[in-house]
Amino acid sequence: MKPCEEEEEEGRAAAGGGGGDPWQECVEVAVQLARRAGQIIRKALTEEKQVSTKTSAADLVTETDHFVENLIISVLKEKFPSHRFIAEESTAAGSKCVLTDSPTWIIDPVDGTCNFVHRFPTVAVSIGFAVNKELEFGVIYHCTEERLYTGRRGQGAFCNDKRLQVSKETDISKALILTEIGPKRDPATLKLFLGNIERLLKAQAHGVRVIGSSTLALCLLASGAADAYYQFGLHCWDMAAATVIIREAGGTVIDTSGGPLDLMSCRVIAAGTREMAMFIAQEIQTIHYRRDDEN
Amino acid sequence: MKPCEEEEEEGRAAAGGGGGDPWQECVEVAVQLARRAGQIIRKALTEEKQVSTKTSAADLVTETDHFVENLIISVLKEKFPSHRFIAEESTAAGSKCVLTDSPTWIIDPVDGTCNFVHRFPTVAVSIGFAVNKELEFGVIYHCTEERLYTGRRGQGAFCNDKRLQVSKETDISKALILTEIGPKRDPATLKLFLGNIERLLKAQAHGVRVIGSSTLALCLLASGAADAYYQFGLHCWDMAAATVIIREAGGTVIDTSGGPLDLMSCRVIAAGTREMAMFIAQEIQTIHYRRDDEN
Repeated sequence: MKPCEEEEEEGRAAAGGGGGDPWQECVEVAVQLARRAGQIIRKALTEEKQVSTKTSAADLVTETDHFVENLIISVLKEKFPSHRFIAEESTAAGSKCVLTDSPTWIIDPVDGTCNFVHRFPTVAVSIGFAVNKELEFGVIYHCTEERLYTGRRGQGAFCNDKRLQVSKETDISKALILTEIGPKRDPATLKLFLGNIERLLKAQAHGVRVIGSSTLALCLLASGAADAYYQFGLHCWDMAAATVIIREAGGTVIDTSGGPLDLMSCRVIAAGTREMAMFIAQEIQTIHYRRDDEN
Repeated sequence: MKPCEEEEEEGRAAAGGGGGDPWQECVEVAVQLARRAGQIIRKALTEEKQVSTKTSAADLVTETDHFVENLIISVLKEKFPSHRFIAEESTAAGSKCVLTDSPTWIIDPVDGTCNFVHRFPTVAVSIGFAVNKELEFGVIYHCTEERLYTGRRGQGAFCNDKRLQVSKETDISKALILTEIGPKRDPATLKLFLGNIERLLKAQAHGVRVIGSSTLALCLLASGAADAYYQFGLHCWDMAAATVIIREAGGTVIDTSGGPLDLMSCRVIAAGTREMAMFIAQEIQTIHYRRDDEN
């Protein structure tokens, strides 16, 4: 079984056939851009790369990240001149990362940049969209497997043409858990990161997987291939699109404290069931990262 | 880039066109069986499963593991009645796991059983073949991505029709490392497992990935998508086929002590370069597992 086997009619799944959806055109443009960006990334995967670092030696960026982000934003700005943007590389370059009530695109041009640098075939484009601070839709494209994940608030989540449904597991001793390391690698952070894995394995979780792309890990969660995901040190552009997809697949996305998700808090738990999410929240220790909306 | 994009002419890549290869027919049968088993596993991924445990609560087995192993062995026994077999579920059921000089098939019917149980799409069939205790060829089929990895001693390694080439990285601070948790989950083993990841991240490895299939992790290493792989607690059927593929892709496969690979030792380091393999050997602490050939 590929998680999604048939070819999708562009935008149909996410948009539910239109009929008065005010953001229908935005969904369609996002799908087109995600596919176009995915083609560029797929081609770039085979080529030599200039790699730079950002917040740490493990926080990488390439020309492709910049090129794809500029492409996506320039097309969206021309089509939707009143919209606002939050995007990974613009933020790294100093743009403020503030979510207002305006229609706002939240973009990760290349999620899994470390994978991309190594040609490890788990890399995605993530495009989320919020209005009045509410996430309206998400489009994620798995560049190497050519899978398009879409979620439109109130209309379900899909991988290509297949409807997504999260796992219904509530018991940690039958659970497969996803997480990611995060960019901070100081000894104290590593102790906490590994301590959290230790706690979940001691609670007899079947296993922990680390695939190197927060966005695609969240898509696997949405497809029911894992029972929970948690991470400290990811960003709003890693979770925005995936959050809509998971919720529309029947899942729960919350803060690591167990409270409501805060998109700017750089931390998240997602699970198929609320019970599983709350268990993880009680079990793991907090790793502190600066908020995305801090200066 | 998919690691391998074109369709392969069956067996051609691994067998190098025949011409006196005494094991050519075996390679061809292995390729056919791996594809056939992969179809069965792909279909079974979508169905409800009866799951049992073996050596620990995390060491799972399903009806599909047994069914696929029986299918592969029954076909091979009919075609090659003098050959011997080492296979995961037969061993679990009490068969001895001893490599003699006879032509011997070393089989993992479903590598990544925990993934399989969770419908996590990283599952493989692995068929290795040794004569005079020397690995002659390996065939590995990624069931959900439909990628066929093949390696024939002296004739190169391929993913579908694409020749595989390992990474040439020698510097740990530019490396992506793969590992797997292993079946033992007692507190002392978990400390060592997590301590090894901590050591490599403190040595500034770019990242560590855990995908839940030793065999497919080794195939990613062979394809250059990661720079090293190490594990304690895997079995000869997890490494036999992959070892040929990695060596034919230019890589190194050694014991975790830094010495020569011992297929029955339940431990391995594989890397694109000898320098990288030796660095890992010096850095990690041993986790003791019983040998495959111990009673």
